[in-house]
Amino acid sequence: MADAPGSAEDRLIARYFKPLAKHPGTFGFNDDASAITPPAGHDLVLKTDGLIVGVHVFPDDPADGVARKALRVNLSDLAAKGANPLGFLLAIALPKGFDENWLAAFARGLGEDADAYQCPLLGGDTDSTPGPLSISIAAFGTLPSGTMTKRSGASVGDHVFVSGTIGDAALGLRVRQGEASGWKLDATLSEHLVSRYRLPQPRMALAEVVRTRASAAMDISDGLAGDLAKLCRASNFSADIEVSRVPRSDAANAALASDCNLIEPILTGGEDYEILCTVAPGRVAAFEAASAKAGVPVTLIGRIVAGNAPPRFLNPEGQPLTFIRPGYSHF
Amino acid sequence: MADAPGSAEDRLIARYFKPLAKHPGTFGFNDDASAITPPAGHDLVLKTDGLIVGVHVFPDDPADGVARKALRVNLSDLAAKGANPLGFLLAIALPKGFDENWLAAFARGLGEDADAYQCPLLGGDTDSTPGPLSISIAAFGTLPSGTMTKRSGASVGDHVFVSGTIGDAALGLRVRQGEASGWKLDATLSEHLVSRYRLPQPRMALAEVVRTRASAAMDISDGLAGDLAKLCRASNFSADIEVSRVPRSDAANAALASDCNLIEPILTGGEDYEILCTVAPGRVAAFEAASAKAGVPVTLIGRIVAGNAPPRFLNPEGQPLTFIRPGYSHF
Repeated sequence: MADAPGSAEDRLIARYFKPLAKHPGTFGFNDDASAITPPAGHDLVLKTDGLIVGVHVFPDDPADGVARKALRVNLSDLAAKGANPLGFLLAIALPKGFDENWLAAFARGLGEDADAYQCPLLGGDTDSTPGPLSISIAAFGTLPSGTMTKRSGASVGDHVFVSGTIGDAALGLRVRQGEASGWKLDATLSEHLVSRYRLPQPRMALAEVVRTRASAAMDISDGLAGDLAKLCRASNFSADIEVSRVPRSDAANAALASDCNLIEPILTGGEDYEILCTVAPGRVAAFEAASAKAGVPVTLIGRIVAGNAPPRFLNPEGQPLTFIRPGYSHF
Repeated sequence: MADAPGSAEDRLIARYFKPLAKHPGTFGFNDDASAITPPAGHDLVLKTDGLIVGVHVFPDDPADGVARKALRVNLSDLAAKGANPLGFLLAIALPKGFDENWLAAFARGLGEDADAYQCPLLGGDTDSTPGPLSISIAAFGTLPSGTMTKRSGASVGDHVFVSGTIGDAALGLRVRQGEASGWKLDATLSEHLVSRYRLPQPRMALAEVVRTRASAAMDISDGLAGDLAKLCRASNFSADIEVSRVPRSDAANAALASDCNLIEPILTGGEDYEILCTVAPGRVAAFEAASAKAGVPVTLIGRIVAGNAPPRFLNPEGQPLTFIRPGYSHF
């Protein structure tokens, strides 16, 4: 970031991003870089995730929500790793002739979320692009050294848990795309699904619980089935999941009642931003109690089993489901 | 980053970026985030800078050079702040149907520079975009706590220094754009200018010298005139620069001999990636000696003066030059 007066770029930064320079290490965005003093005895957890208009969000999505989503998808990873937010860097590429009102709303949403999640903007970069508006965030969290909850810590017999409900965002995307008229959802249920797609609710309240009680964890961004497969591969095990246990919202249940094939996008669709974790049998009671105390619903959905086959999603008859498209990929 | 097997995205990451996961805190890119243990008593210096094909580099620039430039423009900032590289995060957005050979060369160049500058890849994000290929890097450096060299530390009477030579990259861009036929440069001189545009040489060897001897510093990325104006504003002073002292390469001198108006792009054009710093009079000798020992040429070009007028660039008659376009802006 740079300072005004000077170029139009400097002016944009001064108007929209300098008010967000609340961390003393940003030097009011009057320098080329920021400096932070990491807390002693702590590790920094690093994550970067981007968002491109037309790919991850719709061109007419509200700008403040785009900002919130861009930040929150990174916060969700920090929570799943057991880290507390420290701050973030923002790189934004704006198309020629972008609407300055859009940027004003974007900066407002970003600033409100930075405050709400105690994750201040620590610096950034503003470019002009011939392509679509693109945002890249690098987020930093802290935790006591050596305590990051990894994907690879699961053991055979561990219980598999998820937070919240699964599949809402994938269904919300279909609603948003106008592909849900056959579901006959009322406005409240439809809006619930769309809001789950539009605005992730990262499970920061669960970070400490995951870090101290879970054996392995990750956030669910590319779909439960695909992300569980990643966790299993990293841990060198497999898993058996009981589909009937996978927690669903009333809205997802209503949609599923109209079309039983929706179980596939529910289990494989992306952007849940819930936490998937494994817990050793002896720690389950403590994990459940701590989650309840943190105010986050968690649900036992299955177990880690031996072998390196892909995880199985079992119907009530004990038969594994097969998916046409197991997880989200950009390519 | 994520792990193979799985999606095409996972496969790309496994093939091209996992070989770069040399830092233990990356967990071989088999996790959602990385963890680093910052050295005790040190601050982290944070910087993000991006690069868009068609904006910052030409579509036919060699891929390995694009990778190097993307990393080096960030390293240049770390050096100017007095920091040693710790590592970086990479966000890359690839157009549909991109050439995988391009990505292979990109990853090779990135890995070679990560090794050469001891700045390992710590994580990343890979997206698909309908726009041009875009790269965003967030780089981290370390330095003893509280010792970052800021823009704002200059005092009246401080000497103004620059490293290397000024203006080559701006002239090299014109050569690259085919606007330099009138300069009658031979191939060696032309190639020198283009290489200075294409491949910055960040002044890492000067980081420690700047941190311990300079009162204020920044890297020159948006042109000497514009960046000096930023340093002066941050320090609440002005500067008088003797244009005849501004160090130029033989190639820049040859171009200037053919067209004296090129002094403007030399002084205002971007992408020098040299260090601009101020040094208190009592420290000049030590600064010059330490720079010589570090093997980096530095040149005294002027003084910090009182007032808040823009810095003056004085010709041999003591008259200030006026510039048509004082510095680079994206908007």
